[in-house]
This record gives sequence, structure tokens and C-alpha cells, in this order.
Amino acid sequence: MKQPVSALVLFALCAVLFASQGLHGLQEMASKSADRSQQAASDGPAFSPANELIKPADYREWMFVTSGLGMTYTTPAAANPTPNFTNVYVNPSSYRSFLTTGRWPEKTMFVLEIRASTREGSINKAGNFQTGLVAIEAAVKDQARYPETKWAYFNFGRAGEMKDRVEALPATATCYACHAANTAVDNTFVQFYPTLLEVATRMGTVKPEFAH
Amino acid sequence: MKQPVSALVLFALCAVLFASQGLHGLQEMASKSADRSQQAASDGPAFSPANELIKPADYREWMFVTSGLGMTYTTPAAANPTPNFTNVYVNPSSYRSFLTTGRWPEKTMFVLEIRASTREGSINKAGNFQTGLVAIEAAVKDQARYPETKWAYFNFGRAGEMKDRVEALPATATCYACHAANTAVDNTFVQFYPTLLEVATRMGTVKPEFAH
Repeated sequence: MKQPVSALVLFALCAVLFASQGLHGLQEMASKSADRSQQAASDGPAFSPANELIKPADYREWMFVTSGLGMTYTTPAAANPTPNFTNVYVNPSSYRSFLTTGRWPEKTMFVLEIRASTREGSINKAGNFQTGLVAIEAAVKDQARYPETKWAYFNFGRAGEMKDRVEALPATATCYACHAANTAVDNTFVQFYPTLLEVATRMGTVKPEFAH
Repeated sequence: MKQPVSALVLFALCAVLFASQGLHGLQEMASKSADRSQQAASDGPAFSPANELIKPADYREWMFVTSGLGMTYTTPAAANPTPNFTNVYVNPSSYRSFLTTGRWPEKTMFVLEIRASTREGSINKAGNFQTGLVAIEAAVKDQARYPETKWAYFNFGRAGEMKDRVEALPATATCYACHAANTAVDNTFVQFYPTLLEVATRMGTVKPEFAH
């Protein structure tokens, strides 16, 4: 996992954020709007025979968990007025399972969509709104496929040079240790997902050190 | 429509933003996860016999359009390090229609979820993440019901005192004129929705003054 200059996003996944912006590779919108009723049984991760995770074309239609702006767990050298947004999605069937159990089932998949932001446009006078796609990353829970780490982390890369399928990052990537150490529920940053935190609190599935 | 001190959100709807934060009325999560296949025919607005729009229990499972942070069209008096997030959702069938036509069909409904933000929590060192629910507002396209304005705007109020159903705001509310004058596609702020802007641009449905 690359770890360049700017900022480590901790949103759903620990992942590399790149500072450049203005990319508008909105390929994901080309996705066909699959009928939800057909999605139910197959809305989780799909792998190639070479054990590569296939980038889901329709993740924008998955369940939106939350969005952050400029989140990082390293103190930035200077304030950035237009940091990136991080949109977090999870596959619908796992989301519904979480709502009733506070736990992530096998084959849960998170997508972290990183988008540039701007402050200037149309009638906006302050604050930030989302613009071009920057990068896409993912996390998958699959204890059969990844028996040592249970969750695996993936980086599809930056817009414009994005891969359609990628192998899991090696277990030595910082994602693994960070998610294991700093997440409120089962390797996921539920402490930053207000509606899911409420569910997990009610269900008693928040790790003791994160429970209020 | 109330118009107090702080800031007018222009995100999906022109709407009142309140500065207070930390509210955690996450009632919406109590919603049952309706089967998507059953939603298809009835995922738009529902009205009471008294012509009140009923607040959808499951809007968090609708299509997420975008999120902004601290957006406003009036210059704020002072910088606010923890402004509100504005999450924009649209009913799924209208979203899919837009993907193929670049237009909003009748019975399109937007929900604007306003959430507080914080910079401090867990391992976060900079940037903002979402916390408690602040308020919910909505927009509905229904030319039969609202022949003069075509779109109508609704304010369900603040968390803790939120209404289950509300009448449309009067056509004199600033929402109506603002949306008519400042939106890129059919009364909606598609200029702030990057993936939908790409669709509308491709379909040629962006108003000429907003087209690049």
C-alpha cells in the first residue's frame, strides 16, 4: 500500500489519500441499474479466478454509510481549504444484517470513494462540495479466503488509471494493524458512522474501549 | 419556512441550517429494511389525506446523491470549524430514471439530511466527520398536486421535535425562487452532484447557463 505525502484517510478503511484534484473519471456512473431484487443474493464481493477483487460497477447504489471531509490520523503540515471527501458504502444485504444484529456477516464489502472538493462554484459562498473522483478502495470480510486477517484491504487506484480488479494488499500494509487497533466494531470505523453506531450501541457490539 | 441567523443551505434544497449540534435523534434507523423489490412501485412521496407529505422512514436506504460540508449562499460572519454536513438522497426509481434520461420524473422526492459534524474523536487529527441528526427537509416534484410551482418544499423540522408529516411550505418561501433561479437541472442543484452532472451533461439536460 502506497503511503505518499499528504494524509492517511481513516474513514472506513485506512488508506492513502492523494492531494491532487479535479479528476472527473466518473466511470462508475456507466453502471447499469441492476434490479435490487436480483442483487440480494449477490451484492457482496466478487473475485476473479486469480483471487482478485472485482471493482463493483454499481457501488454508488449500495448503502451509503457516511461521508467525511479531510479526515486524517496524522496532523497535517498545513491547513487545506479543499481536502477530499470520503464517501463510505457497504453492500446492501450486509447493511441490513447489521441493522438487526450490529455485526458484519461474512462477505461484507465496504467501498471507500474518495472525491475532490471545492469551495467555489455556482452560488456557494462557504463550505465544500464534492467534485471529481480521486480514488476507490475497499475492504472485504471473508474468513475463508483470508483466514489470518479475516478482513482484507484493496486499493483500486486513482481515477484515470484505476484497475478493474486487484489483489488484496499484503497483510503487512498498515491498513490491517490500524483497523484491528482503532475500530469500534469488527475492524470497521463504526465510531464515525453515526447511524450504525447507534445500532451497534443498542446491540452491544461496540468494543468496550469505544463504548460510551 | 423559518429563516434564522445562521446559513442557508443550498444543497439539494434551499433550506434552513441551524448551528446547534450534538443531537442524536437517530430515529430514522428504526426503519425496517423494506425489501427493495417491493419498494420499486412505491418508493416516492406519500401524502396524508390532508395533503401532508409523510416523512419516509427508510430514506437512508434511498440513493445517496452527495454530501457537502458547511455549504451556504450567504457569506458567513465568522469561520465555523464544525459546520453541518448535508446528505442528499433521492428515491431509487427516480434516480434510475435520471441515469437514463437526465430528467426527473413526476413523483421524484429528494431528502436533505442535515447532520452535525465534529473534528475531534477517536484517532481523527483533522477534518470533519458526521455526528447527530440536526434536521430533515424534502422536495417533491408533483405537477398535478402543485400545478403552479411543479416542485414543492417541505421542512420536517429539527431532531427532537421532528414532525412525521408536514404540508408544503408556501410558494412565497425563498426555496421556490432560489431553486427556480439557481439550479442546473429542473429545480435541482445538479451542479453540486458530480455523478448526476456527468449524466445530465451527456444527456443535454443541463440548463444552458450551467453547461460548460
